[in-house]
Amino acid sequence: MSVARGGRLPTAVDQAMQKLNTSVHVDCALWREDIQGSIAHAHGLVRAGVLSADEGKGIVDGLRLVGQEIERGEFVWEPDKEDVHMNIESRLVQLIGPLGGKLHTARSRNDQIATDLRLWVRTHLDQVQQAIATLARAIVAQAENQIDTMVPAYTHLQRAQPSRLSHHLMAWQELLIRDGSRLADARRRLNECPLGAGAVAGSGFPLDREGVAQELEFDRPMQNSIDATASRDFLMEALSGLAILMVHLSRISEEIVIWSTREFGFIELSDAFSTSSSMMPQKKNPDVAELVRGKAALVIGHVTSVYILEKSLCFGYGRDLQEDKRPTFDAFDATLTSLYALSGAIATAKFRGDRMRAALDDGHLCATDLADFLVQKGVAFREAHHIVGGLVREAEQRTCQLSELPTDVLVSAHAALQGSDLASALDPEAAVERRCIVGGPARLQVEQAIALARRNWGV
Amino acid sequence: MSVARGGRLPTAVDQAMQKLNTSVHVDCALWREDIQGSIAHAHGLVRAGVLSADEGKGIVDGLRLVGQEIERGEFVWEPDKEDVHMNIESRLVQLIGPLGGKLHTARSRNDQIATDLRLWVRTHLDQVQQAIATLARAIVAQAENQIDTMVPAYTHLQRAQPSRLSHHLMAWQELLIRDGSRLADARRRLNECPLGAGAVAGSGFPLDREGVAQELEFDRPMQNSIDATASRDFLMEALSGLAILMVHLSRISEEIVIWSTREFGFIELSDAFSTSSSMMPQKKNPDVAELVRGKAALVIGHVTSVYILEKSLCFGYGRDLQEDKRPTFDAFDATLTSLYALSGAIATAKFRGDRMRAALDDGHLCATDLADFLVQKGVAFREAHHIVGGLVREAEQRTCQLSELPTDVLVSAHAALQGSDLASALDPEAAVERRCIVGGPARLQVEQAIALARRNWGV
Amino acid sequence: MSVARGGRLPTAVDQAMQKLNTSVHVDCALWREDIQGSIAHAHGLVRAGVLSADEGKGIVDGLRLVGQEIERGEFVWEPDKEDVHMNIESRLVQLIGPLGGKLHTARSRNDQIATDLRLWVRTHLDQVQQAIATLARAIVAQAENQIDTMVPAYTHLQRAQPSRLSHHLMAWQELLIRDGSRLADARRRLNECPLGAGAVAGSGFPLDREGVAQELEFDRPMQNSIDATASRDFLMEALSGLAILMVHLSRISEEIVIWSTREFGFIELSDAFSTSSSMMPQKKNPDVAELVRGKAALVIGHVTSVYILEKSLCFGYGRDLQEDKRPTFDAFDATLTSLYALSGAIATAKFRGDRMRAALDDGHLCATDLADFLVQKGVAFREAHHIVGGLVREAEQRTCQLSELPTDVLVSAHAALQGSDLASALDPEAAVERRCIVGGPARLQVEQAIALARRNWGV
Amino acid sequence: MSVARGGRLPTAVDQAMQKLNTSVHVDCALWREDIQGSIAHAHGLVRAGVLSADEGKGIVDGLRLVGQEIERGEFVWEPDKEDVHMNIESRLVQLIGPLGGKLHTARSRNDQIATDLRLWVRTHLDQVQQAIATLARAIVAQAENQIDTMVPAYTHLQRAQPSRLSHHLMAWQELLIRDGSRLADARRRLNECPLGAGAVAGSGFPLDREGVAQELEFDRPMQNSIDATASRDFLMEALSGLAILMVHLSRISEEIVIWSTREFGFIELSDAFSTSSSMMPQKKNPDVAELVRGKAALVIGHVTSVYILEKSLCFGYGRDLQEDKRPTFDAFDATLTSLYALSGAIATAKFRGDRMRAALDDGHLCATDLADFLVQKGVAFREAHHIVGGLVREAEQRTCQLSELPTDVLVSAHAALQGSDLASALDPEAAVERRCIVGGPARLQVEQAIALARRNWGV
Repeated sequence: MSVARGGRLPTAVDQAMQKLNTSVHVDCALWREDIQGSIAHAHGLVRAGVLSADEGKGIVDGLRLVGQEIERGEFVWEPDKEDVHMNIESRLVQLIGPLGGKLHTARSRNDQIATDLRLWVRTHLDQVQQAIATLARAIVAQAENQIDTMVPAYTHLQRAQPSRLSHHLMAWQELLIRDGSRLADARRRLNECPLGAGAVAGSGFPLDREGVAQELEFDRPMQNSIDATASRDFLMEALSGLAILMVHLSRISEEIVIWSTREFGFIELSDAFSTSSSMMPQKKNPDVAELVRGKAALVIGHVTSVYILEKSLCFGYGRDLQEDKRPTFDAFDATLTSLYALSGAIATAKFRGDRMRAALDDGHLCATDLADFLVQKGVAFREAHHIVGGLVREAEQRTCQLSELPTDVLVSAHAALQGSDLASALDPEAAVERRCIVGGPARLQVEQAIALARRNWGV
Repeated sequence: MSVARGGRLPTAVDQAMQKLNTSVHVDCALWREDIQGSIAHAHGLVRAGVLSADEGKGIVDGLRLVGQEIERGEFVWEPDKEDVHMNIESRLVQLIGPLGGKLHTARSRNDQIATDLRLWVRTHLDQVQQAIATLARAIVAQAENQIDTMVPAYTHLQRAQPSRLSHHLMAWQELLIRDGSRLADARRRLNECPLGAGAVAGSGFPLDREGVAQELEFDRPMQNSIDATASRDFLMEALSGLAILMVHLSRISEEIVIWSTREFGFIELSDAFSTSSSMMPQKKNPDVAELVRGKAALVIGHVTSVYILEKSLCFGYGRDLQEDKRPTFDAFDATLTSLYALSGAIATAKFRGDRMRAALDDGHLCATDLADFLVQKGVAFREAHHIVGGLVREAEQRTCQLSELPTDVLVSAHAALQGSDLASALDPEAAVERRCIVGGPARLQVEQAIALARRNWGV
Repeated sequence: MSVARGGRLPTAVDQAMQKLNTSVHVDCALWREDIQGSIAHAHGLVRAGVLSADEGKGIVDGLRLVGQEIERGEFVWEPDKEDVHMNIESRLVQLIGPLGGKLHTARSRNDQIATDLRLWVRTHLDQVQQAIATLARAIVAQAENQIDTMVPAYTHLQRAQPSRLSHHLMAWQELLIRDGSRLADARRRLNECPLGAGAVAGSGFPLDREGVAQELEFDRPMQNSIDATASRDFLMEALSGLAILMVHLSRISEEIVIWSTREFGFIELSDAFSTSSSMMPQKKNPDVAELVRGKAALVIGHVTSVYILEKSLCFGYGRDLQEDKRPTFDAFDATLTSLYALSGAIATAKFRGDRMRAALDDGHLCATDLADFLVQKGVAFREAHHIVGGLVREAEQRTCQLSELPTDVLVSAHAALQGSDLASALDPEAAVERRCIVGGPARLQVEQAIALARRNWGV
Repeated sequence: MSVARGGRLPTAVDQAMQKLNTSVHVDCALWREDIQGSIAHAHGLVRAGVLSADEGKGIVDGLRLVGQEIERGEFVWEPDKEDVHMNIESRLVQLIGPLGGKLHTARSRNDQIATDLRLWVRTHLDQVQQAIATLARAIVAQAENQIDTMVPAYTHLQRAQPSRLSHHLMAWQELLIRDGSRLADARRRLNECPLGAGAVAGSGFPLDREGVAQELEFDRPMQNSIDATASRDFLMEALSGLAILMVHLSRISEEIVIWSTREFGFIELSDAFSTSSSMMPQKKNPDVAELVRGKAALVIGHVTSVYILEKSLCFGYGRDLQEDKRPTFDAFDATLTSLYALSGAIATAKFRGDRMRAALDDGHLCATDLADFLVQKGVAFREAHHIVGGLVREAEQRTCQLSELPTDVLVSAHAALQGSDLASALDPEAAVERRCIVGGPARLQVEQAIALARRNWGV
């Protein structure tokens, strides 16, 4: 009767175990780093006297041959060899014979995979930095082009105050500065070499850990073998940085989606970054921005997965860690794709300054300026805010703008609401120029911000 | 200077947009459902008088041909045709000519993908149910085999009270009953047909939505076209159900990992479900259980992604939804693999009853029974608990067990602690049998639970 | 030197342990359920012969006194008594003397808290159902009021096809039907009684578990004592259901935010559900909708926490589970608040049918209808789609609408594009009425949907 | 009939809106920072000529009075004044009259809350750094105490190789170094001043933003007013850092739970950091470690909430951001409590070196050393690994340890397996000392690591 007594397990059971156990379809992405790490390890074994110079050369030449085969697409990945490490080592032995079996001396897959993964993340963090710079340059270029375009600043998606499109675009750029800085810190912190940590407790061979670290351009060897093989905070940190960056891209994308509506009409994406409908012949959809929002959701899920994966794991290495590769690879891929696609969308977008400018004239956007006007006449701000609030209600009832209210209405609200400088208080362009403190939208301030950004991003 | 003025965009930018936009490498998994849905739609168009019977037949035959090509691995998926729908429709037109262009009448990719996805999830929920049953059967079979094996019940991972291994295994099985029930509810709730909803606002053709729904074995057509195309709560619900199930499998796996330690030594996995080390020749690791824990982390990340993806999306369809496929497919795949692998691991595991029984004799596991003994002599439970606590401290100081305390020590703690029935209070086997209420570990109760489970799972 | 050798631990250390260990500031929310469960347990002990009838009465009367003290706000919760259970039991003993110490016979805090929590969740699921119904009624009432209001249906936030506002509102209502159904399933599945499971292995006393379950209106006692004390899938399921519901509310809220913009201008929230700015006197912000979006983010975080908390926990009870209460209580609180606040916002909102209707006239929303017109003249849909796409481009260049294109332009695109029925194809109202299949926006369909909903929600 | 037509809205609706809108019960935690920021703003207004020196002094004195009232617990927080800012400003006006109404000139709650929150996070990051140092010192002190304690190093929770307890403890400490470094980077990056950014577009008054920043010990004013008011990446980054740290604490805690089992018996927590059972008189549970694991789950949920909250938010400020405070406050609170409680648990724990040492003698932990022995005799590692694997199986069949195998068995496996140095290869202590490379468990290496750590943490 018993499924436990042999013979009656469904085929799916054995397939499932093999499927769980095999990771080469995912971790083959690490082949370049695996070979790079193995070459450095072989050099180290020679310096440690474990391999002769000739043996070392034989192994390194063999590893390079394997690398060329993979590069050329000739390499056959075999699932039954389980992972990238065993596939490459096995091919090495085929190519150079039993000598290949000496490569794994004083090494375990535990320090090997930790090394491969750090190298891979380091390389891809560098790629992300380049992609961030590409997007920042596209934004700064548009900010420069649009220096004369006025637009409402919004809060709660309601028109708030007059501003300058360039000022808005430069806000996007500020986020990217911090994103780059955050990921640079992550790179610096991960740049230590696990090799030599062995399975968990180091190695009895007199390995030259500093030399190996140096060859792989790591800053130093890791200082504790258990930590070196069991810790993945470098993944959690890198993926957190990507998640924050993707949240930022989702915010930019949300604005693109909303600005692309016929109701706002502030931006027109080029055809290359829009798509049509299979049913509705008139549609032009801002798919690029929607897809970036979607990718942001995935990347947040990926970092959550990696946090959960690590939580409550005993030291040292546990097999759960095999599962951190897919979320890592997918998160980097999604981020790079999103950065480049948004760069293109923004670089080729057409901003509709006419519609933005028109939006300034509806919504009492200078109400704050009118209150400030009263403050300068000696009224306490809270009182001024209250007075102007009443005038806004008055204007709404008359369905006119604040600047169109008759003088008597203004003066009866407060005696100071008259004079030659009143018009300026209610003029959107003047309002923008008045905001000429650091970080404000006045032309001078934005030009300085752009100049600084051009130096920073090398535009 | 400007990246916005043509020609200077990095190649990565265009590649990125194409990469974002193309989904066929992922959604080709839906080919069977896409063809199934298209056939039903074609039949519906005939009934609606939009297609002639001959046209309908031509299209359906063509779709079946396409299906056979895919089945045989002869179909070439083309990325520039973007998704599974366009790849299949395009091939249909190649095979049957312009007639193929009539299939998409009164349909949009928006209702089409919603239908495909519901069909796919429904099929895979059924597969998960089968896999749950396989695991449950393996557990029940072991529970039956181990009916005589005593083991400590633990709380806080500390030995708590004497119990029966079968009782513990049957606890695992209880979780699976609810998991199956929960996913059955999800299946029932999703079993409605979106076809006919069009892009967002239905169709002007007199479609036979009930007939199409019936052909696809849906319970009914969805009742609102906007809801039909924009809602994905069926994904959120199915993935929540999988996440809960995977949390349960992670708990079982954690126990397997801990029971597999040399320190516990309660279970030995068969070689087929263990792995060795690349460095340490003596290792036998419970990888299957660690990998299932890892998969659980991924599935929680996937459901989180889908929640986030849907959050704050306007109606109707938005392109963000393209990104819900990978987490869905991966979550089902991880769950099915985990269920089957655990089934095998448990079915072939060897439980070490000797070590479990030995564990009962160390740790004062009958302390509660001694307190209950006092209660039966009229002592209030709180006082009894206090008295026995003192005796446990006494026994710890003497490094003996409660049952080894001299009579005078017992009697001086409380006069009732003597007599012929005292030994039984401190005997682990008797303690287990005494717990003969519903849900308790007494043999009778567990046998009834097993009998019920055998009927339930069809063992 | 050593911090380990006494005396040098910072005060923060001891405070921290006490803070970790004390939960009464959170779990005191369970007082009503704790007393209710204790009364049923006392009745059960009487039936089991463990307590005399008098003892049982004394305990039950005492518990009711404690409950009255709490209800009246006279009860002093003491942190050093750790949790709600010990606070109440300790007060009971103060009130009725040593007899109070008999209440905990055959019970552990492990089955006690599992029972309290199930009772609490059950009650609050019922409250959520009422709140869902309140929101649904507000939506259906507005749908009925707005039956004559035309509005564009959107996809990708782009105008897609002509529709009816009521149809859109009824889509919101469809989501709520499934949310209610999903939570009802969760309630049904959780409605089992843990009492009698003891700490982990049941009890040696002949408890009447069925009777206790019945008194607490549970459907049955739980069938395995380990499962009863260690499982919290009922929390994961209930919180998943709340998360899905909150995702739905966030979608409705996103639309309210966007419809409230000056650019859309489709909705005006009443002052009671808007707020102003501390700086800008003219602002009226749709805060209710933004706050609901924010609450949705929190609830997704809460369910994620509970998944993570449970992952990889050994059976039986572990203290990690103490931490599941805050996310549970907060998730229910956020959901109830959001449901009621949205109900008010929607019930009191003013829809701007004039602006919605005007939006239909810009954006070629009848392009699909024109393609369908061609299909009815015998053109394959793909070709028709292509032809109309060309006409849309023509109209865009002429900055006119499709219906304003000269006849010769139309006819030269396709000979069939003429005749008396052409105008109807391009008329938004007619387009809506044509979509008179199940789930479509035609008046008849929507009226039927409203009638059904009125019966369903008891409006 | 209509709920929309007045009078029939449930009371819950109005209560819900008020409840949503009021945040003072949460954000009152910011009172100290709010007053600190307001004082700096008042000073700035004086320097900008907006306030006279006397006015400035009057406001600052008033703010200090308010602060004293709150400090003394005399301040009454009023929900209908909505938030911490309005409560404090309103009290200021009560105390000093209309002059108080001038404080909010050139400021909005949008830049005010951003400033408060940065100040609060900065202070609490500093507290976390102190708590990390406390925990690190407790760990290093124990590492020093336990320098002679041998223990197995584990992988997959299986005994792997001989190691030193201090080496294991120092691995925990390595994680904390990076955690501290990561949070220091977060602090540096957030240390910019939003004040002066106003609601979204800066201010028309000539504010001295540099001076205000300096007074508040910020490194500089933020460079873009939209970014300053709408960005919360500083929260996402700080909470990510806390989540990673808590994952690390959960790993340490998991080891404490497992080491506390009767089966391992490696550690005994002091009574102050354990708890007992309400039912089982003998229980002593490692609750501190379980609760820390539970807190880790909550903190991961909190950072997820904040990611989600920010995702797809338009610039500038949106009310969703109100909801970021609870997860932030709770995450810091959970982290500080966990750090201190673990410090105490570790500082007062008793390590059972006898049981750890005994564990070295069972499980063939020197198998790697035996393979290395063969490598030194010229055998390729892969072959050596294979040979030793066979010997392990042989020893398992004979139920003896590798070191107990007869010489002839060894020699027949490989001729080199003999000689005077063979015993050393199989001696656990010798094995540990052989691993004397950087990061290894040899006494010299661990002593150097401890010395370095003592300097680093100021022990």
